[in-house]
Amino acid sequence: MSQYTLRERRDRAFGAGAPLFYKSPLHIVRGEGVYLFDDSGRRFVDMYNNVPCVGHANPHVVEAIHRQAQTLNVHSRYLHEGVVAYAERMIARHAPGLNRIVFACTGTEANEIAIAAARAATGRRSIICMDKAYHGNSDLVDKLTFAGERDDPDISPVRFPDAYRAPEQGLSDEDIAEHYLEDVKRAVDALQAAGNPVACFILCPIFANEGGTRIAQAYVPRAAEIVRAAGGLVISDEVQSGFCRTGQWWGYDSVGFTPDIVTMGKPMGNGIPLSAAIADVDIIERFRRLSGYFNTFASSPVQAAAGSAVLDVIEREGLEAQVAEVGARLVEQLRAIEHPSIGEVRGDGLFIGVEWVANRETGAPDADGAQQVVDALKDRGFLIGAAGAYDNVLKLRPPLVFEHQHAEQFMAAFRDVVSG
Amino acid sequence: MSQYTLRERRDRAFGAGAPLFYKSPLHIVRGEGVYLFDDSGRRFVDMYNNVPCVGHANPHVVEAIHRQAQTLNVHSRYLHEGVVAYAERMIARHAPGLNRIVFACTGTEANEIAIAAARAATGRRSIICMDKAYHGNSDLVDKLTFAGERDDPDISPVRFPDAYRAPEQGLSDEDIAEHYLEDVKRAVDALQAAGNPVACFILCPIFANEGGTRIAQAYVPRAAEIVRAAGGLVISDEVQSGFCRTGQWWGYDSVGFTPDIVTMGKPMGNGIPLSAAIADVDIIERFRRLSGYFNTFASSPVQAAAGSAVLDVIEREGLEAQVAEVGARLVEQLRAIEHPSIGEVRGDGLFIGVEWVANRETGAPDADGAQQVVDALKDRGFLIGAAGAYDNVLKLRPPLVFEHQHAEQFMAAFRDVVSG
Repeated sequence: MSQYTLRERRDRAFGAGAPLFYKSPLHIVRGEGVYLFDDSGRRFVDMYNNVPCVGHANPHVVEAIHRQAQTLNVHSRYLHEGVVAYAERMIARHAPGLNRIVFACTGTEANEIAIAAARAATGRRSIICMDKAYHGNSDLVDKLTFAGERDDPDISPVRFPDAYRAPEQGLSDEDIAEHYLEDVKRAVDALQAAGNPVACFILCPIFANEGGTRIAQAYVPRAAEIVRAAGGLVISDEVQSGFCRTGQWWGYDSVGFTPDIVTMGKPMGNGIPLSAAIADVDIIERFRRLSGYFNTFASSPVQAAAGSAVLDVIEREGLEAQVAEVGARLVEQLRAIEHPSIGEVRGDGLFIGVEWVANRETGAPDADGAQQVVDALKDRGFLIGAAGAYDNVLKLRPPLVFEHQHAEQFMAAFRDVVSG
Repeated sequence: MSQYTLRERRDRAFGAGAPLFYKSPLHIVRGEGVYLFDDSGRRFVDMYNNVPCVGHANPHVVEAIHRQAQTLNVHSRYLHEGVVAYAERMIARHAPGLNRIVFACTGTEANEIAIAAARAATGRRSIICMDKAYHGNSDLVDKLTFAGERDDPDISPVRFPDAYRAPEQGLSDEDIAEHYLEDVKRAVDALQAAGNPVACFILCPIFANEGGTRIAQAYVPRAAEIVRAAGGLVISDEVQSGFCRTGQWWGYDSVGFTPDIVTMGKPMGNGIPLSAAIADVDIIERFRRLSGYFNTFASSPVQAAAGSAVLDVIEREGLEAQVAEVGARLVEQLRAIEHPSIGEVRGDGLFIGVEWVANRETGAPDADGAQQVVDALKDRGFLIGAAGAYDNVLKLRPPLVFEHQHAEQFMAAFRDVVSG
């Protein structure tokens, strides 16, 4: 036995500072459906993890991985029926015109591909993104995370359309959207004037990392029009919003527009590293021609088996409709709570955000209070997160198989915590 | 049934130009040990694939993946014994001082981490790399691939130490190394003079993509000294050279130096996407502090289970020694062949390169001829590749479980092809 605790051993192996949840971290040893179990056997309802979308250790997915791993797992420079069939199935899930796919392993890699493809297609370099965006962790996409803080001629951040903290009191949602769309117009014009016109506009259509906004439908399709009118392409980062998260297949469906390039990741393989970028034939073939892109671990038979099994479960179990129903009722119940710290409840299917504020008049964010709620819910057996531009939005983002009964249990605990 | 062939369906799903081997591509359906089987049941000896290092569909690895996938697969912000134990085991496999690890999913991601860590540690930006290097496919590491073709103030390519095509006739290997080391000195000095001193020097210690060189031991340790004397760090990209490929655990062992940062990838998980960067505590903790690096799919229990099972097999089956023995005998047999197209045979364990040339006096590369050998060997049931700076080096890089008997079978086919 080591003389160190698991936590100490972890710090000694990963280096101090490797991210860890909760003041007193959880030691999770098992998962099943929406449940996670710690080393003492305690059960938690997982309302945080979107990756195991069809449930932790889903038997159909596990069996598909096992069968394929027993048979073959190799790179994509040989022909493979399972890989091609999965690619066809993913394409069929998308809007017409989104008809060629490039597989990768992580959301970061998918966004790298999307940006490279947009640059190849337009012959331009510059990127418009949200000021509080997160699209991954490579050198390039990391620049988007820090777009609001560092000057880069190729990266133009615009304010995310924060309707809760609107620019003025009393504006209609349409007017608020219009206010933020001016940012996009200014960014497009400034890039044009600098001789570095926009190659692409990248956004999460439900503004997941920003904490959500109630005006996505008024904002996103029009922002896309502005960028396209200037010759740029629109990348919808569906790493969080895709795969029925919103109660529709794609975030772009739920906000009402069709992107030029879509990226996907987290839930695709229920935990097997799997991501993709999808666009039309001209964009993808030009990208392939110019880059010769090849990814050793991607487009593999095990990825395809896991991905296909995820689609099977979503389709068979009718999770698209279930997410819409369970999410809508949960939002309704949350909205029925009158509490001085709850500024707004926003929901897109099972992506639900609760603005936790110090003051409902000013909307001043209360990140510490939000973290206390997160910790108190953990102590009651429910795992949620705090996120958003100000780290104050309670984020409920359970596996898609989360049901009404789990929502009822959660609401009892939540009412208890907020009234306590 | 589709009216299209599998090849046509693939082009329609991935876009034309997705990389594919052979004029008449293989449709591989099953793998076992060193063998791959096509859709007609034909068996091939796999002498190309380094990813399935302990053999295709290795039962111990498959079972480890299955067991863990049935139990739990989740991100790393909870504590997990298996993940920490695997991290400790990987660190113990490395030279003293390489004592903290960051897991990722692909070699590209590992190299992104290594460069970011080197930049964080030195407060500098510029990178020295080989002119024919390949370290991955993101925006940043792609710049290394094209370093010889595009001007970038932060990227300084140096000629790889090509001893076969030496700068002059009649030089000793020491003198050839000295000739190429001048490039490194010049690059270091030029960066210093430009006020953009070197942050890091990145290289594959066996020059795998460049096609290998017989003078790595004379060159690499001294190149590292030059870079360190100027305050830069040395990154050893062990994505190809690591995990006993050379008959020693790491390429850096086989060339005799200790890098500041090591990256690993391809064989780590026997096909499960898994990679890592490793360095000392100061470098990694500074990187974590500045970047907050988190990778959703990395440091996962399934990655750790696959990775640990790979280490089990390598250790139990004594593959380090086996690779050294099998590789050495195969090199010996290849060197015994007198053939006008064989310019040189180089070997590092089971990474073996055969210079296929149009003219042994001039060393003029014969890429077309090499491809013909590759295709002819495929027709005889042996899968090899052609690689190197001039695409003319026959590359033999089988799974580590490749044995003398397979080498004997290969030699019979190879003699037949080259005498034909």
